[in-house]
Amino acid sequence: MGVTITGTGSFIPTGIAKNERFENNTFFNEDGSLIGQKNEVIIKKFKAITGIAERRYIEDKLSTSDIASSAALKAIENSKIDIETLDYIIVAHNYGDVKHGSVQSDAVPSIASRVKHNLKIKNPSCVAYDVLFGCPGWIEGVIQANAFIKAGMATKALVIGAESLSRVIDQHDRDSMIFSDGAGATILETADGASGILAHLSATYAYDEAHFIYFGKSNNREVKDSPNYIKMHGRKIYEFSLIKVPEAMKSCLDKSGIPITDLKKIFIHQANEKMDEAITNRFYALYDLDPPEGVMPMTINMLGNSSVATVPTLYDLVLSGKMEGQKVEKGDVVMFASVGAGMNINAIVYRV
Amino acid sequence: MGVTITGTGSFIPTGIAKNERFENNTFFNEDGSLIGQKNEVIIKKFKAITGIAERRYIEDKLSTSDIASSAALKAIENSKIDIETLDYIIVAHNYGDVKHGSVQSDAVPSIASRVKHNLKIKNPSCVAYDVLFGCPGWIEGVIQANAFIKAGMATKALVIGAESLSRVIDQHDRDSMIFSDGAGATILETADGASGILAHLSATYAYDEAHFIYFGKSNNREVKDSPNYIKMHGRKIYEFSLIKVPEAMKSCLDKSGIPITDLKKIFIHQANEKMDEAITNRFYALYDLDPPEGVMPMTINMLGNSSVATVPTLYDLVLSGKMEGQKVEKGDVVMFASVGAGMNINAIVYRV
Repeated sequence: MGVTITGTGSFIPTGIAKNERFENNTFFNEDGSLIGQKNEVIIKKFKAITGIAERRYIEDKLSTSDIASSAALKAIENSKIDIETLDYIIVAHNYGDVKHGSVQSDAVPSIASRVKHNLKIKNPSCVAYDVLFGCPGWIEGVIQANAFIKAGMATKALVIGAESLSRVIDQHDRDSMIFSDGAGATILETADGASGILAHLSATYAYDEAHFIYFGKSNNREVKDSPNYIKMHGRKIYEFSLIKVPEAMKSCLDKSGIPITDLKKIFIHQANEKMDEAITNRFYALYDLDPPEGVMPMTINMLGNSSVATVPTLYDLVLSGKMEGQKVEKGDVVMFASVGAGMNINAIVYRV
Repeated sequence: MGVTITGTGSFIPTGIAKNERFENNTFFNEDGSLIGQKNEVIIKKFKAITGIAERRYIEDKLSTSDIASSAALKAIENSKIDIETLDYIIVAHNYGDVKHGSVQSDAVPSIASRVKHNLKIKNPSCVAYDVLFGCPGWIEGVIQANAFIKAGMATKALVIGAESLSRVIDQHDRDSMIFSDGAGATILETADGASGILAHLSATYAYDEAHFIYFGKSNNREVKDSPNYIKMHGRKIYEFSLIKVPEAMKSCLDKSGIPITDLKKIFIHQANEKMDEAITNRFYALYDLDPPEGVMPMTINMLGNSSVATVPTLYDLVLSGKMEGQKVEKGDVVMFASVGAGMNINAIVYRV
């Protein structure tokens, strides 16, 4: 008997923001100096590194809790469970609800409470809480649900990753082009058979790395009383991730006892295409192998980096046959892996 | 073998804000109308209901993560564990770090990551995350740590409740006088013997109750572009709590199998003195009893309502002999109980 994903759903915002949207932005470096290149060149380089051609933004009237609720509803329908039988609603996010035009994060009540309210769930024993763990939050939520089930405290959990980074980006920072909005949701249950979580691993690197991703002022020093925006030290994150993420993935896979040649897919956080490719190359290199063709489905090109939402969204899209040339079948062993603010890293080896 | 609290610590801010501080505030009702009473009368009534004579505010230079770290350090020293052996750092809060003079909440990186950074813990396997569950967040963190230990995923956890409500209060709202700042921390470990968590219970009421505590504009409608502040529908919370909290406490106690006459202390969230007394009276009434003298130690008079921090702070003060006439001894059975935004309720029955 394992802890199994019995339903998935995602919400992909309808608003498409192409790279051209940024053509008239004025971009500054972290030190406030003007970037001495034409926007055309900046955007071309950005596209080459991150793979991002366009990203999704939610409508002005929506907030993170709304899209979390939409994704949740789809996962519930997909799993066919009775919503009143849920023991937990766990929502991973980082900024709560930030209304359009506001700079304030709002997570009181928690996003999970709002989702429970929106889904009209009455059962008070369904415990709704939020987990903050950077981009790896959805995977961490799954690991927590797994713990509650193993400890005999739950049998069914709804785990959601939802984020609206369009509400916290600095228009004068090149990195703003990476970020996106989205929500992915899954239902976890105990199930008979071979399917389920085989191994998991989590890590927090905070000694030197705590502030690699942070909340900081606009790169444009002319902005008076600038609010804080999502900011990152890209190079440091890249160098850190390239060493630590493949190591973590290997530890997790080895713990599961599954040989790497049996690993069918890696659902990795859509952080940056080149970085994700380098991580996967290094992961296979730790076994003296090259990654098999198509092992790492990617959505970043069209969906950008929506933080906690990328992994559950990706998994939902592949499961539901919406990604050309990508599929998983009953019995396949796959890996979920992520890295983000904290700096946190986690991975799950899972038999579909 | 039980999951046991082996160390406690708290941080009580040095800044004392007496009720007189509010004498020159202009208070409005929720509907924006002026409260037709002198401040002297408003404050007197406030004191009579809530029991609050003064509360604590952190210094301008501090934020929630700083006071969380201070409380954590004391709990670690008290437990004498090696910090590098911690498996989890769980921080309950609601508003993240809000710097003095800012209206923005910042929880990227998570407060738990910041604490881990401040404590200079290197071990990456020590997983640091935040839990958002309203005022009952610290108790919920303890329940989660208990699950990780029971599931074999951890042996030692640091669970902190830290909040700085002084950064999110509306000076034109009477309720602002309730709120306070503080941090409490505990170390949880497996231990031989009879000591440990005997039963726990959590609930989320979100169907009608989700927005009883919310983030809203100033009661003073003259304030242009008012930021959001912590707000509550006091009467609704009072009526809800008086029914649901005693029920939850009874369910939890009955689950533990401990007769109510063996319950030595109730460490209840310091929400409001009259409400806490009414809850405890009703809890005992469910067993046709009156509460024994001194069963409910209270700090609200001098420390106000510091949300997630009240219960661990209270427990730390009693354990360390800092509350006159209050003590617990090895073997005593006590209860932790809380209610707050979500609306969430939880309780733990614990043998010291």
